[in-house]
Amino acid sequence: MKIIIKSCFYLIIIVFQCSLVTAQDLPEWQPELTETWEPVPKQVFSNPESPIPSDATILFDGSDLSQWEDSEWKIDNGVLHVEPGTGGITTKDSFGDVQLHVEWRIPEDVDGQSQGRGNSGIFLQGLYEVQVLDTYENATYTNGQAGAVYKQYPPEVNASLPAGEWQAYDIYFEAPVFREDGKLIKPAFMTVMHNGVYVQNHVEVKGPTILTGLPEYRKHEAELPLNIQGSRHKLAFRNIWIRKL
Amino acid sequence: MKIIIKSCFYLIIIVFQCSLVTAQDLPEWQPELTETWEPVPKQVFSNPESPIPSDATILFDGSDLSQWEDSEWKIDNGVLHVEPGTGGITTKDSFGDVQLHVEWRIPEDVDGQSQGRGNSGIFLQGLYEVQVLDTYENATYTNGQAGAVYKQYPPEVNASLPAGEWQAYDIYFEAPVFREDGKLIKPAFMTVMHNGVYVQNHVEVKGPTILTGLPEYRKHEAELPLNIQGSRHKLAFRNIWIRKL
Amino acid sequence: MKIIIKSCFYLIIIVFQCSLVTAQDLPEWQPELTETWEPVPKQVFSNPESPIPSDATILFDGSDLSQWEDSEWKIDNGVLHVEPGTGGITTKDSFGDVQLHVEWRIPEDVDGQSQGRGNSGIFLQGLYEVQVLDTYENATYTNGQAGAVYKQYPPEVNASLPAGEWQAYDIYFEAPVFREDGKLIKPAFMTVMHNGVYVQNHVEVKGPTILTGLPEYRKHEAELPLNIQGSRHKLAFRNIWIRKL
Amino acid sequence: MKIIIKSCFYLIIIVFQCSLVTAQDLPEWQPELTETWEPVPKQVFSNPESPIPSDATILFDGSDLSQWEDSEWKIDNGVLHVEPGTGGITTKDSFGDVQLHVEWRIPEDVDGQSQGRGNSGIFLQGLYEVQVLDTYENATYTNGQAGAVYKQYPPEVNASLPAGEWQAYDIYFEAPVFREDGKLIKPAFMTVMHNGVYVQNHVEVKGPTILTGLPEYRKHEAELPLNIQGSRHKLAFRNIWIRKL
Repeated sequence: MKIIIKSCFYLIIIVFQCSLVTAQDLPEWQPELTETWEPVPKQVFSNPESPIPSDATILFDGSDLSQWEDSEWKIDNGVLHVEPGTGGITTKDSFGDVQLHVEWRIPEDVDGQSQGRGNSGIFLQGLYEVQVLDTYENATYTNGQAGAVYKQYPPEVNASLPAGEWQAYDIYFEAPVFREDGKLIKPAFMTVMHNGVYVQNHVEVKGPTILTGLPEYRKHEAELPLNIQGSRHKLAFRNIWIRKL
Repeated sequence: MKIIIKSCFYLIIIVFQCSLVTAQDLPEWQPELTETWEPVPKQVFSNPESPIPSDATILFDGSDLSQWEDSEWKIDNGVLHVEPGTGGITTKDSFGDVQLHVEWRIPEDVDGQSQGRGNSGIFLQGLYEVQVLDTYENATYTNGQAGAVYKQYPPEVNASLPAGEWQAYDIYFEAPVFREDGKLIKPAFMTVMHNGVYVQNHVEVKGPTILTGLPEYRKHEAELPLNIQGSRHKLAFRNIWIRKL
Repeated sequence: MKIIIKSCFYLIIIVFQCSLVTAQDLPEWQPELTETWEPVPKQVFSNPESPIPSDATILFDGSDLSQWEDSEWKIDNGVLHVEPGTGGITTKDSFGDVQLHVEWRIPEDVDGQSQGRGNSGIFLQGLYEVQVLDTYENATYTNGQAGAVYKQYPPEVNASLPAGEWQAYDIYFEAPVFREDGKLIKPAFMTVMHNGVYVQNHVEVKGPTILTGLPEYRKHEAELPLNIQGSRHKLAFRNIWIRKL
Repeated sequence: MKIIIKSCFYLIIIVFQCSLVTAQDLPEWQPELTETWEPVPKQVFSNPESPIPSDATILFDGSDLSQWEDSEWKIDNGVLHVEPGTGGITTKDSFGDVQLHVEWRIPEDVDGQSQGRGNSGIFLQGLYEVQVLDTYENATYTNGQAGAVYKQYPPEVNASLPAGEWQAYDIYFEAPVFREDGKLIKPAFMTVMHNGVYVQNHVEVKGPTILTGLPEYRKHEAELPLNIQGSRHKLAFRNIWIRKL
């Protein structure tokens, strides 16, 4: 921030000043005063060829499941397939505040209606669910459709693509904060982009997702694994990455 | 803020400057830059003898009910008595954001239990209720006790005084804001002090108070009358004033 | 929601009940109680082939500038080119809460440093700026780099791509709300995704963007035109669409 | 909550049902479902004679300074007197989220103007100041008057009483929360009641109070001592109590 003047010079200012000396004696705002220089935000695209920011942990890029606890889900042709009825899948690592990118696809030949079309879910910290479901021209309860914070907030709009298409979530999740004695200091917040459309805007999560009754916070660890819900239906995932914030 | 220098003078500055010119050339913060001078907050205690701020509308000071729509409630000895079973009482004027002060008393000989002890309520905008009830050593559901935003938020602590004592609420209420087309732009918020103790801290009101089911906002006028709920029980009110914010 | 049973049947229940009748007399939660069915979120991808949601207004798709007031900016090969020193460009339509998508590119041969590399800005409502600048390996003040809410919030990370690459902003903007008398009821909020990375998370905008001094809100219309700032440098824009929320 | 039916009875229901069976088959809301029963808010007025809630720590009731680190301030006639020029006073105990009640008085014969009239301050966690000053008919910068969060937020109104009168603050303070690595998870919030009037409503504190420049958070302990600022002027305090939240 130093301005270096290399040359040497003489400066002679002769000022004849008479009253009234006024405003110019007061301190004046300079544009530099509202500049901030530190800390410098880290650069996250060291490789401009990749759409994945360099501070992301790649949870699944088609090659292996080394980031996940054992499960019965299978990789086929770079895609992660849910084996219906086998339970979900959980990361080995734990997370607090994150940005999560995940892509999912309900097969074109999905059969069933309402909640019966490719029903799964992204459980941040294993507790707070963004619903996965084929709700392209499929009526169900609004806080249970794709893009919903399940049983808490319907998406602002229905940004679903038809079954057979890959769909993407970009989720910004702020984990809840509890005090030692269990008091909730700050609830969780979620912003969700579905296929490039904002469908949740910083909604205040009401507590862990539950099917029946009203959600209620209970103290838990600051970081917990991510979980993708098992399903009775066939569906597939790919391109999963997460940034710790 | 102007500094006036009345004398006249000559100022001759001769500066010999060589490299390196550094930090002292950058603009410097002055304390005055973060002072704000306008608008000047209005003074609200023109009369230091009165505990009622001068910008308040006095809704009831013991003398009359001219600020209220007709009701069957009666003034006796400067105190406003609920006539059980006669319905509530509603202001003539309408309000948006307000600070409300109200004092209430459940009679010493109150009979009944749980919700049956001096049950009434302060309905901001006729819709958003702070519960009135004798809950000094009286078990009831926590979001239905005195100081609760009824059926939404229990008070942080139970600041109730025994029946027979005058109790005070100091409520800061931010009215909800709706857009022309009905979209909720900002929910209501409430802070409640009960007998000098903060029992609600800027809680986000979930919608109009309802007994059964989950509250839901519906567009309404920016300003609406204040209502005090009728009761099947005897109770009394005094010192009611309100400040438009 | 009605379950229709078409057949006709006889149901005979014979219950022998002795005391103590207990919990089963209490109402029980059913999953359906926390389902919401209305309003139904509108579907925004009627055409799955297009990445642009169907509720968006296309401000620029390469063909013409009919959505904008006259300017000296030029379309060349489907791209909108800033003519340096000619001022900015302003929409004919006005906006309140919006999602805005915009893509921009600083030419590869950009010359200059700090704020001198493709300096422009996206002014929501003509007042609240998200900075446009080549800050890929270009040091400048952090609240003045790409992805910054200019002079208010640095981006959480530097998600810039090198000059010559197309870059994208997906902005969720909540307009400020003023009361008739000028009181600020709700400040503006902004969420910004830069090249797929969240760089601003629901930050509370402090007031209209200013270069010098501290920002301060002043009452304005609920909806105002979008403006893209003029520049002394060459840069280009494409794929601009906006959704009224 | 159990309903006990003591008698024994036979119940025979014979139902002849033909289509259409409709809404009555769906689960129905019952008022009890939105009642909450636990945890029970603790009762804070075991002694209705005292205006001080029973969960408060009394920091000064006129008798001694055992709750404070050594200082040169003096008790006279149940009142705590600032000895001008001797520095401030700091609690032995540390605090996070609190309600603080404190009363203060500027002497009637105060001499000086603007910031020169009984200038002191209540520093929550020793860092976040609510200004103490005689600003009854005394012009100064608005974010430096009594009830201001110093250099950050002017009070909504000027609720000052004249010099010579006792004045009261009831402050609800939410401490900032930092993550291990220093990231600010939640800023501090403050609500201030001055002489019974809300003058700060859940304002987001911008950082530790500073005279010059813009405030900035730096990680600190979750609990820190309360400090009352020293003064060059005479003033007095009484009735200081604090509730850990």
